[in-house]
Amino acid sequence: MEIVCVGNELLIGKTLNTNAQWLAKRATSLGIMVKRITVVGDEVEEIACAIREALQRKPRFIITTGGLGPTFDDKTLEGIAKALNRKLELNQKALQMIKEKYEAYAKAGKIEKAEMTPHRVKMAMLPEGAEPLQNPVGTAPGVIIKVNDTFLIALPGVPSEMEAIFDESVAFLLKKEAGEAMFFEASIYADGIMESTLAPLIDLTMHDNPYVYIKSHPRGEEKKPHIEIHLSTTAKDSKTAKDRLGKTIIQLSELIRKKGGKVKV
Amino acid sequence: MEIVCVGNELLIGKTLNTNAQWLAKRATSLGIMVKRITVVGDEVEEIACAIREALQRKPRFIITTGGLGPTFDDKTLEGIAKALNRKLELNQKALQMIKEKYEAYAKAGKIEKAEMTPHRVKMAMLPEGAEPLQNPVGTAPGVIIKVNDTFLIALPGVPSEMEAIFDESVAFLLKKEAGEAMFFEASIYADGIMESTLAPLIDLTMHDNPYVYIKSHPRGEEKKPHIEIHLSTTAKDSKTAKDRLGKTIIQLSELIRKKGGKVKV
Repeated sequence: MEIVCVGNELLIGKTLNTNAQWLAKRATSLGIMVKRITVVGDEVEEIACAIREALQRKPRFIITTGGLGPTFDDKTLEGIAKALNRKLELNQKALQMIKEKYEAYAKAGKIEKAEMTPHRVKMAMLPEGAEPLQNPVGTAPGVIIKVNDTFLIALPGVPSEMEAIFDESVAFLLKKEAGEAMFFEASIYADGIMESTLAPLIDLTMHDNPYVYIKSHPRGEEKKPHIEIHLSTTAKDSKTAKDRLGKTIIQLSELIRKKGGKVKV
Repeated sequence: MEIVCVGNELLIGKTLNTNAQWLAKRATSLGIMVKRITVVGDEVEEIACAIREALQRKPRFIITTGGLGPTFDDKTLEGIAKALNRKLELNQKALQMIKEKYEAYAKAGKIEKAEMTPHRVKMAMLPEGAEPLQNPVGTAPGVIIKVNDTFLIALPGVPSEMEAIFDESVAFLLKKEAGEAMFFEASIYADGIMESTLAPLIDLTMHDNPYVYIKSHPRGEEKKPHIEIHLSTTAKDSKTAKDRLGKTIIQLSELIRKKGGKVKV
């Protein structure tokens, strides 16, 4: 799977990309591996280029975030259409979804009229062959398009809307693809040992435990080494995973203690 | 400029990519525009691929984060070497920097011996033609390589180390490239108006103020619209920027009030 995040606010450092982290964590926990995250600005050619490149790598899923709203700089669907060499067309199902939202807003007295202004209709202009995904907490629908073997899915940038559409209309597709594979992880913490001293111990432990991936993350400062050691494995059931991670943690902890380090679980 | 972040922890959603935000914010404030951020895992081919693609777009700067340390999965320099079709070679200057660090650690009693183990020497294996950048707060040096008109700069993933090397050895290069251009921004907040009603007002205001970029960010929930309106401009002096932003804010605020919205600065 690949994630493509659209938004100038990410490129000027105004916004921290919590959407990418949320999607990456959720996909991983559903058993799907994220291979790449790309962030581009609100420009049609930039978006199209990132989508084209991602499609060439043939991932099963490409999920975009951002750029689905009513303003001039919401350009994700235009970018996707360009990448696919398809036209944008008024999608009646999407239009209906949006209409119902504005009628509800008008009824609640939040807007004067539920009229479908050009900026509101814009959110129903989808690439040919696309299907809208109901947005349970906002106005702009999500969008899904099957391109050969890839599901190309566009979600809004507002986190609550992105998460709601993902949970309601996307998660089951990832779960289905992942089958029984599940991702398991654990962390232990080592004090009083430098990362370069720890490195060969990790090599040895990983050699003996080929299904467990171990990565060290220095968390302390130079004067006081404190290292998080993150262990992960993909397995079909939690017993297998726990056995693997447990055995690995025991071996690595012994090696660290022999080198004078302290281990906290 | 492009940013390439390396690390499985980013792709499994374990770590929030604060490095990309920090670099994007810092580059923007120095007057350099970030065009793309790419995140890949700890695999040589993935890193090489992302670097090759970035180089083809000919940005003036490519800054990578992560993958410079002593462990087996620190593969950024190998990936860069592969992308450039160059060999990794022992860089004497980098080796000296690293040696001095471990000698200081040994003196301080933090490690037994300052010996240069293979995992420590690894951090001095740089692509041919590269120069190390002093790491003031950690062990692994940063790396800079000039590739045609692009400065390719590799920084560590530990935020304090990344930031220290950037400030000490990279920021001045960006400033020099940017010249006098500076980035200015301001935000106002609109309540009681929906984003789709605001959209045409932004269009009109941007048409009348072509040097100011305006982007709306919905912050409230559907039932209570609250929108941050972010305005930005690039100018050579703060007076020009303030005049532009001020004029734009006045015009847009009036339009919003006419539509029944409230504006907070």
